[in-house]
Amino acid sequence: MTTDPVSFPAGELRGSPTPVLVLDEAVLDRNIAAVAASAREQGLALRPHAKTHKSIEIARRQLAEGAVGLTVATVSEAEVFAAGGVRDLFIAYPLWLDSDRTRRLRRLLETARIRVGVDSAASARRLAAAIPEAERAALDIVVEIDSGHHRSGVFPAESGAVAAAATDAGLDVAGVFTFPGHSYAPEGRAAAARDEAAALRSAVDSLAASGLATRVVSGGSTPSAAFADPSVLTELRPGVSALGDAQQWELGTIGPESIALTVLATIVSRRSDYLIADAGSKVLSSDRVPVSTGFGRLLDFPEARITVLSEHHATITGVDLPVGTRVRIVPNHVCVAVNLADTYRVLSGDGGVASWPVDARGCNT
Amino acid sequence: MTTDPVSFPAGELRGSPTPVLVLDEAVLDRNIAAVAASAREQGLALRPHAKTHKSIEIARRQLAEGAVGLTVATVSEAEVFAAGGVRDLFIAYPLWLDSDRTRRLRRLLETARIRVGVDSAASARRLAAAIPEAERAALDIVVEIDSGHHRSGVFPAESGAVAAAATDAGLDVAGVFTFPGHSYAPEGRAAAARDEAAALRSAVDSLAASGLATRVVSGGSTPSAAFADPSVLTELRPGVSALGDAQQWELGTIGPESIALTVLATIVSRRSDYLIADAGSKVLSSDRVPVSTGFGRLLDFPEARITVLSEHHATITGVDLPVGTRVRIVPNHVCVAVNLADTYRVLSGDGGVASWPVDARGCNT
Repeated sequence: MTTDPVSFPAGELRGSPTPVLVLDEAVLDRNIAAVAASAREQGLALRPHAKTHKSIEIARRQLAEGAVGLTVATVSEAEVFAAGGVRDLFIAYPLWLDSDRTRRLRRLLETARIRVGVDSAASARRLAAAIPEAERAALDIVVEIDSGHHRSGVFPAESGAVAAAATDAGLDVAGVFTFPGHSYAPEGRAAAARDEAAALRSAVDSLAASGLATRVVSGGSTPSAAFADPSVLTELRPGVSALGDAQQWELGTIGPESIALTVLATIVSRRSDYLIADAGSKVLSSDRVPVSTGFGRLLDFPEARITVLSEHHATITGVDLPVGTRVRIVPNHVCVAVNLADTYRVLSGDGGVASWPVDARGCNT
Repeated sequence: MTTDPVSFPAGELRGSPTPVLVLDEAVLDRNIAAVAASAREQGLALRPHAKTHKSIEIARRQLAEGAVGLTVATVSEAEVFAAGGVRDLFIAYPLWLDSDRTRRLRRLLETARIRVGVDSAASARRLAAAIPEAERAALDIVVEIDSGHHRSGVFPAESGAVAAAATDAGLDVAGVFTFPGHSYAPEGRAAAARDEAAALRSAVDSLAASGLATRVVSGGSTPSAAFADPSVLTELRPGVSALGDAQQWELGTIGPESIALTVLATIVSRRSDYLIADAGSKVLSSDRVPVSTGFGRLLDFPEARITVLSEHHATITGVDLPVGTRVRIVPNHVCVAVNLADTYRVLSGDGGVASWPVDARGCNT
């Protein structure tokens, strides 16, 4: 058999199938520590969003660095992390309690403190009807606020009414939260953080006008976190910053040295003007934001562009490599790429390779 | 507890978590029969692409309707279907045989007839070096042709040289194949089929000029299949037509009555100008083609639009429904949506609900 062309990284993963998720443990640990230090300096509680990594091992490292609990997006993610020993979970989503989610949420409340989002009086009343009063000791309610991303959430001025409806139904309203997702724009990071602070301040006032105190004022996306206003927020929920991705790199939130997660892929085809790698949309996902230069980036060849993506083909321009070369692709959006895999291959500092499961892969209900 | 708002479909799946893949068995069976009948009428062998459904049960139904074998995209998909009893598999991909893929391909050749794509003399020689001569009885090689999609594949005139290199290396070259993926454009279906026929005809000539006969001339995407030219093709490989999706609906390849696969989702939030459903990019994927009106369609509300998608939120405009309503969302691209799920919930004609595994979910190596 002929010799393999040079690979990035060389060595450790030579025998591994491609495409595969590769996690650089040293970069991961550095990212976790940096996010924790930054939140401490801001005087904010840190509750990282675990939808990004879906890993109990990574969650444990975040908690060991001082995170007060985890954020998750779904009841099934909460189930995975509760089973992994996490005792304080925020399901940052406007849950509608059907019979299935009711049964599962009641079971979660037996083992963990669970905070749940609501964004209407109807969903708050439904929650109260679903969870018997005797089972609510570990249940906190927070009202979701729309701070400019225009997804779920109520406008700040409406939050007092929703909180009052929840309180009247017998629920404990802990406060308010928002996701300033409009921070995913080149010049939008600081502006989104200002919108976030203004919306949360107005929501706190709206609850106060209804006679309700707020002990939780939760915000923060990875791009806006550095600009979060500690005079109104009490808590941050960054997700992507643990792993990094091409969107954050291209938004300028991080540099390539903070990218812990790549997809190791093989160049399988070569033409005069482009290469084809074996990682497509079933591995990287086709997520992209307006600022994206393509469907991901090559960590070792920043000048290269991924111009087209199909299910098992990435078309790469701007670099020429022999067929058989292995390259590290940085996914545009790490949260969706991780959700497509079962396993991380973890490169440790001493040159070893471990496997960590993507524990909450596919947990979307 | 208050009553659930009306659901689409009503009844059978009331207790199911959402989001979940729902397969209408009657539509599936009708689609499988229609594709088989169409290929028979064209006088073409049918080798459906199983990357779409990743299901051994669906593959069995396709084979029972006369398919000669299956197409797959990866060695790991081939492993799943070989384990499920399929004995004739085409890995329609320009494989680069590293040590891992070599080991697995050799094992596959013990139990199934395996056809493999190549698109360079280098990959053909590597294949010959990797698979000992004594193990090649069940191995067929086909040269991939670029018929206008400009992904992997060689230009038709170069195919004879690649085939000759493979033959010289001791491999059995069965013929040529192409994927006319540029058929995914509104007026592109017939034109792509013409490009496909012309490229394959030219490739057959190129092999003949190298003294090689072709017994396999394989083409066909779902949009172009109806226009395939049986005077040059011997075989079709449609994938999506078994399940249907919003891309095919919006391209005009199928009507909504041919959509067998939907994602059952719950409306969790309601604003004056939009709704939020609980199926996002981690369930539907964010794939879209230029003709797409959004990130999927609502089967029961064709006037509605999915204007924004995030990981767990679909923003829906053009229809107003109460929070808690369950809706059927047609994914833009069914292949990537299926790959995000572990299970199909299958609605049978008699009102029952079965579960079928997505056997090859995540098999991307």
